Amino acid sequence: MNKLLVFQTDFGLDDGAIGAMEGVAFCVDQSINIRHLTHNIPPYNIFDASYRLYQAINYWPEGSVFVSVVDPGVGSDRKSLVAHTKSDQYIVTPDNGTLTHIDRFIGLDEVRLIEEKNNRLKNSELSYTFHGRDVYAYTGARLASDTISFEEVGERYPIEDIVKLELFGCKKIENGVLGQIDILDVRFGSLWTSIPYEDFKACGFNIGDDILVEIFHNQTKVYSQRINYGKSFADVAINEPLIYMNSAYDMAVAINQGSFSKAYGIGVGSEWKITMTK
Amino acid sequence: MNKLLVFQTDFGLDDGAIGAMEGVAFCVDQSINIRHLTHNIPPYNIFDASYRLYQAINYWPEGSVFVSVVDPGVGSDRKSLVAHTKSDQYIVTPDNGTLTHIDRFIGLDEVRLIEEKNNRLKNSELSYTFHGRDVYAYTGARLASDTISFEEVGERYPIEDIVKLELFGCKKIENGVLGQIDILDVRFGSLWTSIPYEDFKACGFNIGDDILVEIFHNQTKVYSQRINYGKSFADVAINEPLIYMNSAYDMAVAINQGSFSKAYGIGVGSEWKITMTK
Amino acid sequence: MNKLLVFQTDFGLDDGAIGAMEGVAFCVDQSINIRHLTHNIPPYNIFDASYRLYQAINYWPEGSVFVSVVDPGVGSDRKSLVAHTKSDQYIVTPDNGTLTHIDRFIGLDEVRLIEEKNNRLKNSELSYTFHGRDVYAYTGARLASDTISFEEVGERYPIEDIVKLELFGCKKIENGVLGQIDILDVRFGSLWTSIPYEDFKACGFNIGDDILVEIFHNQTKVYSQRINYGKSFADVAINEPLIYMNSAYDMAVAINQGSFSKAYGIGVGSEWKITMTK
Repeated sequence: MNKLLVFQTDFGLDDGAIGAMEGVAFCVDQSINIRHLTHNIPPYNIFDASYRLYQAINYWPEGSVFVSVVDPGVGSDRKSLVAHTKSDQYIVTPDNGTLTHIDRFIGLDEVRLIEEKNNRLKNSELSYTFHGRDVYAYTGARLASDTISFEEVGERYPIEDIVKLELFGCKKIENGVLGQIDILDVRFGSLWTSIPYEDFKACGFNIGDDILVEIFHNQTKVYSQRINYGKSFADVAINEPLIYMNSAYDMAVAINQGSFSKAYGIGVGSEWKITMTK
Repeated sequence: MNKLLVFQTDFGLDDGAIGAMEGVAFCVDQSINIRHLTHNIPPYNIFDASYRLYQAINYWPEGSVFVSVVDPGVGSDRKSLVAHTKSDQYIVTPDNGTLTHIDRFIGLDEVRLIEEKNNRLKNSELSYTFHGRDVYAYTGARLASDTISFEEVGERYPIEDIVKLELFGCKKIENGVLGQIDILDVRFGSLWTSIPYEDFKACGFNIGDDILVEIFHNQTKVYSQRINYGKSFADVAINEPLIYMNSAYDMAVAINQGSFSKAYGIGVGSEWKITMTK
Repeated sequence: MNKLLVFQTDFGLDDGAIGAMEGVAFCVDQSINIRHLTHNIPPYNIFDASYRLYQAINYWPEGSVFVSVVDPGVGSDRKSLVAHTKSDQYIVTPDNGTLTHIDRFIGLDEVRLIEEKNNRLKNSELSYTFHGRDVYAYTGARLASDTISFEEVGERYPIEDIVKLELFGCKKIENGVLGQIDILDVRFGSLWTSIPYEDFKACGFNIGDDILVEIFHNQTKVYSQRINYGKSFADVAINEPLIYMNSAYDMAVAINQGSFSKAYGIGVGSEWKITMTK
């Protein structure tokens, strides 16, 4: 391990929760380098947790230990896992779908069940609602500091048995592609789709093309317009829409210096589909 | 000291204030490990500052130095203190009630007045509105780095003379307990009360009981319902309410994956009381 | 360099963007000390980026490397720069005006163009929308860790050719001064002006004076009232307005424990002017 311990949660930054998690980790080893992805995952949104983890993890060194806690089932009998990825990183998380994108796009090498009797903050046995502090931060810190080995976490668990969310992915359709609107670029209101650049490119689209974009909420078409395919926002005028390849190498639609999501009332998730056709 | 320097303020994260505080500390000693509890304490809310500090501090190593700046009286003649707790941690703060919960529930070992002439960033004498940067971050960094000793901060100050807020605590009533709604679990809308688990348990309540919860705004009853007492949110169906012991080992009420506070328009503070009875 | 690498952006804290930037930097050198000013610069607001950078940089050690990414022109032919300041700090940023306040109030020693072919994360050549990760964090980390020298960034660029925003500054008028409302103290709603304390003081104002404050939106007067000049908020009653010198040593107006901006609907920027006269 490299002593990098990276937290992600849906706990927000308004109270002492993240501070308590950090304290627990520093009590294990003060030389751990604690970092943060985001703590503003929308509450209970496991899909976003899975996506954001995947979005960032590729850019981190081998041996980094990630702790991702979006945990609507805390206190139930849902399992707790540590996963070792094919990119040689570790993820400590409840078994609720958080590993979906990593499993699909990076690959899991081995998963172990957290044996909670030995991997729990001392004197926290009565606490049932904050496993992020009592189990996950504690276990992540012990791994990151080499206090315990991956094997000491607990027994191997079959990768095929972990909880996975369904991913819509990308379908080839006549003259183009069909995908889901996966997630927002929250700050700028751009829509990030599940259509990989490679699949889009395979349709024969080129920079500068005007491409027909149609967006559906359930079965209802809510948007239909030709949009220019540019390299970046600056390829179109301010307040003009564009299609572009986002920083995760998937296709996205945006309004230059505006919010596509707000302008047209478009949301994200399984109810929202998008096509890009000639 | 262990070089851990932990900041908490009501300054928010939208401007350069926290960045300036960090810079001041690194100018004292670049090997300090600066961390953050929260900077989103509601503006001027000393009760919350006191509570959040207490909520997190138990989880941090001995020798950690905390700097808490919620300081509506900045520039007045309110005093500035460093407190040494019975848990062997240090807190740098204005003398305005921020030490209330620590004093009550952990205990203070010794308090010293910050002698500002010697404990102020050089050339900041003209600045009257940002003691967080000029006095508290600076003094905290000098303590955390052992540049000065606790004794060098200034003279001892009587613990009994520090400003303390009134805490409502928990009263035994017929068939149950009466407490105050102290604070929100902001992100999830749960109500955290001043009723300790031990006092609640002493009434003979057991997991699975339906307990009568009544909430009062000043003298007006605004909520009255029997709620199940569970170990964790997952013990009730989604959108169902429950009573549970929170991560601070006090009693709380929540709606599983909903906001109790929003659902019933319940606030926090001295105007809000709650009873739990058989 | 001192291994301090300090990020500022308008990316917010809701997704994995900052986490990816940190990961890139740690892949360059895990011993870098990554810190953050703010990531809540209003989207595309280069003036605020310039101001906030200036507000904080004076408090940081020599040799610190700052990366500021507010970059509406990402993907266009706008240049990328590293500036060395007269205070011996480094700033990595797009050439779009972000260096304006530093240039004016601290001074630039030397500026170099980032030669992107050699200063870009490997395999990121296809990515056009996230230079914060692919170019700026990467280059900042290589500088902070001494992997490359300032000279290796690229060729010298004339300081007089960098993009600069127009600053209104402060004008002497009859019986007082005229300035612009530059920025909000976001959390507390105070208005920070472009009137330096020294220019204000030169008018002969003294603590305790009632000073006529007039605020103009374009040519329209929207506020006119005498306000007390105090050292700090506590010099006036709660909910009373005051003029004071802010922590950047400029003049500001506030309401003690209230929001001046909200109370009177006052905004910031070139459309908003303020006079302080006898």
